[in-house]
Amino acid sequence: MRIALIQMNSDERKERNLDRAEELVREAARSGPDIVALPECFLFLASEKETLPTAECIPGPATDKLSNLSRELGFYILAGSMAEKTQDSCRYRNTSALLAPDGALKALYSKIHLFDIEIHGEVANKESSHVIPGDSPVIARTPIGNLGLSICYDLRFPELYRVLALGGAQIIFVPSAFAAFTGKDHWEPLLRARAIENQVYVAAPAQCGWHQGKRCYGNSMIVDPWGTVVARASDRESVIFADIDLEYLRQIRLQNQCLENIRSNIREIKWKESDKRS
Amino acid sequence: MRIALIQMNSDERKERNLDRAEELVREAARSGPDIVALPECFLFLASEKETLPTAECIPGPATDKLSNLSRELGFYILAGSMAEKTQDSCRYRNTSALLAPDGALKALYSKIHLFDIEIHGEVANKESSHVIPGDSPVIARTPIGNLGLSICYDLRFPELYRVLALGGAQIIFVPSAFAAFTGKDHWEPLLRARAIENQVYVAAPAQCGWHQGKRCYGNSMIVDPWGTVVARASDRESVIFADIDLEYLRQIRLQNQCLENIRSNIREIKWKESDKRS
Repeated sequence: MRIALIQMNSDERKERNLDRAEELVREAARSGPDIVALPECFLFLASEKETLPTAECIPGPATDKLSNLSRELGFYILAGSMAEKTQDSCRYRNTSALLAPDGALKALYSKIHLFDIEIHGEVANKESSHVIPGDSPVIARTPIGNLGLSICYDLRFPELYRVLALGGAQIIFVPSAFAAFTGKDHWEPLLRARAIENQVYVAAPAQCGWHQGKRCYGNSMIVDPWGTVVARASDRESVIFADIDLEYLRQIRLQNQCLENIRSNIREIKWKESDKRS
Repeated sequence: MRIALIQMNSDERKERNLDRAEELVREAARSGPDIVALPECFLFLASEKETLPTAECIPGPATDKLSNLSRELGFYILAGSMAEKTQDSCRYRNTSALLAPDGALKALYSKIHLFDIEIHGEVANKESSHVIPGDSPVIARTPIGNLGLSICYDLRFPELYRVLALGGAQIIFVPSAFAAFTGKDHWEPLLRARAIENQVYVAAPAQCGWHQGKRCYGNSMIVDPWGTVVARASDRESVIFADIDLEYLRQIRLQNQCLENIRSNIREIKWKESDKRS
């Protein structure tokens, strides 16, 4: 099973971004992938306020185009994420769509964790002003493996990856537009930790380059279930590949059975802040 | 607030290990620490079966000696871990003891997660045959900060660190005897991820060198709440230091409020494995 990740530098030109995505998917196709994944906001990347009017229904024009591409090329496409129109005219969802090789819409996942900041009771940044959070972890069970879906900021929340791994996910996607400032210090250790602690493949296609004065980190990565980075992009638009070996995943889970050793009850246990058993 | 970590190469000579621990604590004392932490199994390091007859009560001879040392030197000592005698003659606890500058036993924590492996229904390795797991997360609230306690294999379980961080821990200790084979690939990303995702200091004093044909990884580390490794040992016995800045921790938690953005309900939500909202 071969996976390809597209690293893009999307901007605020929707048509141009969709054409560029198609171009890169066709480039990836030459290496015979089973799934090609696009980054977060592949279709339009600017502020949430600017993104709102670009939101589309899913299915809609963009996913229709990618669905045709999936069918033509005969592999899965994970449309990393795009603004999905909702009934709330003030807010969209940040949604990934998985298109099957027959062009069918196989799964939808909307980003659960939103980046909200309040300083001294005042809103400093509130993604949730423009975005409706998802509320469901999603695993797509496919002939190429059980694919867990997540998006960018979700990466900071190990809880979600645990739910996905215990639900059977073998490959977890993290399409992202990670800032370079935090990415240089947080991106690799968090991706590797999610792979190690859950003994899963982690595949993270990312945005790169400048976006209205903010720089994205790039460094799209595929991490194997031992935590080894088996493919990594630089900070330019590119396509990276890795072969997924579910038998290797099974071996890793035999050697170290940490998923069996979880003590799921520790949340409920009463605190002993200074316990002198003596 | 200054922290010192002792990296040791303990063996199966209890008296010798305790003397060596004292020697290294006295060496650390020269740099004016507020707390000095010893690694897992500082008192005796061999198989669990060999460890069982060496188990002591806490308080007992070893902690009495360290308690006197704490009082004499005027700082906290975290006695990384040692075999604690229990009423079950076949099993001990793997317990860390925190001694206060007045010599008082301030907190006890017993390792919660045990390394058990079954292959095809047969026991391949079962730490829980000889060790009784702890069942309580422990935070010691002290004048130098809220100290969260964990031990070695616990590091693979993000759940525990979340409970400690949400309970107020600012510095989380991970005294360890991490195998070199896994340590080279898992130790740094897991320690850094725990620091980043919980925005806490992580302090991990480790065993180094050979132990009956198995090698420990060493590389004791102090990681700041941004995820930067601010102190790191090599693979030899040594003492490392770092200054802890709780104001820096507060700033990091203002810039990114991921601890506020946790969606704690995601465990309960029903699965949507292939959700076509359209």
